[in-house]
Amino acid sequence: MEDKIRLYELVTQNGRSASPYVWRIRYSLAHKGLPFESMPLGFCDIQKQFGGRFKTVPVIEHGATMMAESWDIADYLDREFPDRPPLFGSAGERATLRLLENWIGIEILRPMFRIYALDILNAARPEDRPYFRSSRENWLKGVTLEEFTADRTSQLPKFREGLLPLRLHLASYPFLGGNTPNYADYMVLGLFQWVGTVSTLPLLAKDDDTLRSWLERGFDLYGGIGRAPGMQPLFE
Amino acid sequence: MEDKIRLYELVTQNGRSASPYVWRIRYSLAHKGLPFESMPLGFCDIQKQFGGRFKTVPVIEHGATMMAESWDIADYLDREFPDRPPLFGSAGERATLRLLENWIGIEILRPMFRIYALDILNAARPEDRPYFRSSRENWLKGVTLEEFTADRTSQLPKFREGLLPLRLHLASYPFLGGNTPNYADYMVLGLFQWVGTVSTLPLLAKDDDTLRSWLERGFDLYGGIGRAPGMQPLFE
Repeated sequence: MEDKIRLYELVTQNGRSASPYVWRIRYSLAHKGLPFESMPLGFCDIQKQFGGRFKTVPVIEHGATMMAESWDIADYLDREFPDRPPLFGSAGERATLRLLENWIGIEILRPMFRIYALDILNAARPEDRPYFRSSRENWLKGVTLEEFTADRTSQLPKFREGLLPLRLHLASYPFLGGNTPNYADYMVLGLFQWVGTVSTLPLLAKDDDTLRSWLERGFDLYGGIGRAPGMQPLFE
Repeated sequence: MEDKIRLYELVTQNGRSASPYVWRIRYSLAHKGLPFESMPLGFCDIQKQFGGRFKTVPVIEHGATMMAESWDIADYLDREFPDRPPLFGSAGERATLRLLENWIGIEILRPMFRIYALDILNAARPEDRPYFRSSRENWLKGVTLEEFTADRTSQLPKFREGLLPLRLHLASYPFLGGNTPNYADYMVLGLFQWVGTVSTLPLLAKDDDTLRSWLERGFDLYGGIGRAPGMQPLFE
């Protein structure tokens, strides 16, 4: 009998899984057909739960193994379950995805945080908010989340323009991974899951049909795991 | 006996292969260990050579096959030479590289053209210059190449910052493709070959050691095919 997998994940007040990195692993587990037990944590629970050993989620527990970092977890899943569909079909695919992760982090994730930092605060469980505010405002060197996001509407045009490489690709392929989804889809879908969990400002233009179709396909994957309740509108 | 491969490529006045797309195929042929005969053309020869069938290089000729478009050629080489090292190790690697190609086109190639458009003109064979100028100034809706590049020095900081995803990756891996080079390396190396062929303005900061080391490794690949004479300094 296989050991059960536990996935420690971040939840907001509405109970939704809220971390873009956790969503990568949710999709990765589904890709490999691996069931898991969800272990929901708030921001402030992470320190207590792991006694400082891990500072971020996702964390997975599988038999005697306990580990953090989404990329390392994806590698672990491929190594530990070689009979399941691989996340990385070749060494070159893995490396190219790793490179793409940098681009996604800089060109998509960062601008999303720029727009939604205050929404994340307000979506967090009340008991997590003081920690979230102080840790993030510390990163921002004392700029408040309110100040940081005050001009966020003006960020939208540039953000949307930055998604052009995705649109060009999706004009030819149903998924970022080509005819079937791969880890590139899971990385970007996870970012939109994050935004959709907290958003009070629609991120995408209503006529962005290429991205809309892909998001619909992506959220439907694996029995609709992206359809968890509580998703805010992503489109104007 | 295998049919010979002919590679039709663009040359500048100094005889250097000057197209970033041709360089992708030069590296791809070397990756697969396939020799080829170079068929150098100037900008104005392309129309004459192919009678309008192809408007751009690379074009390869192999037996009865003659085809353009670097991406299609790479696919052809993998299909036609399945016993040679693959350019695309998995369907997901191929799709991820295709997505990356969009990012590279928008975030690296376009800004390079913004900086080097006039240098390309001046590096072309004298007989090709009127065609190059008129076709590109037509794209630019009448803006001259001189006007287009007048403020190019001010573009450098943003361009260099845009390479951060590459630097982050190369801090952990010797090549964009991981431990061995893949088509991601060939795409970006080809862009630097293009710049190095025409440049009168060093593109990179002198302390950009991460990119410098990777470029040295990349130019040394396959017996140093990137070391063709006539390379201008890439670093300040």
